[in-house]
Amino acid sequence: MKVRVHVSLKPGVLDPQGRAIHHSLEGLGFAGVNDVRAGRLFELDVADSVSDEAIDEMCRKLLANMVIENYRIEKVAA
Amino acid sequence: MKVRVHVSLKPGVLDPQGRAIHHSLEGLGFAGVNDVRAGRLFELDVADSVSDEAIDEMCRKLLANMVIENYRIEKVAA
Repeated sequence: MKVRVHVSLKPGVLDPQGRAIHHSLEGLGFAGVNDVRAGRLFELDVADSVSDEAIDEMCRKLLANMVIENYRIEKVAA
Repeated sequence: MKVRVHVSLKPGVLDPQGRAIHHSLEGLGFAGVNDVRAGRLFELDVADSVSDEAIDEMCRKLLANMVIENYRIEKVAA
């Protein structure tokens, strides 16, 4: 079973990486970009026997920093 | 318009970050994880006037390293 975990900063948390990318895009001449937020993406290949609760726990314990980040779990058809 | 850009390593490219996460998950006692690949996620807020071609160009020029990474553009309903 393929699982994608999307980790993004909570709203209001300062994102220097996103700001740098935004600045670079403007420097490259791209107009109309209002905001950029940077996050992380994890693609997990897990056994079908792994429960949703276990995947949720992986996110909370390791993949995301719950103080400043949100995560979203997306199951992908294998 | 909100746009999500998913950047992930091409198949076959060594992923030390993913391997470290995989190892850590096992260390935490999670069984049944076969593979972990780490990637990046960018959430862009762009003006509606920005064309698909421009977004594609942003990915190729700045957001993804086309030598080792693939990208996928996902438009999110505002």
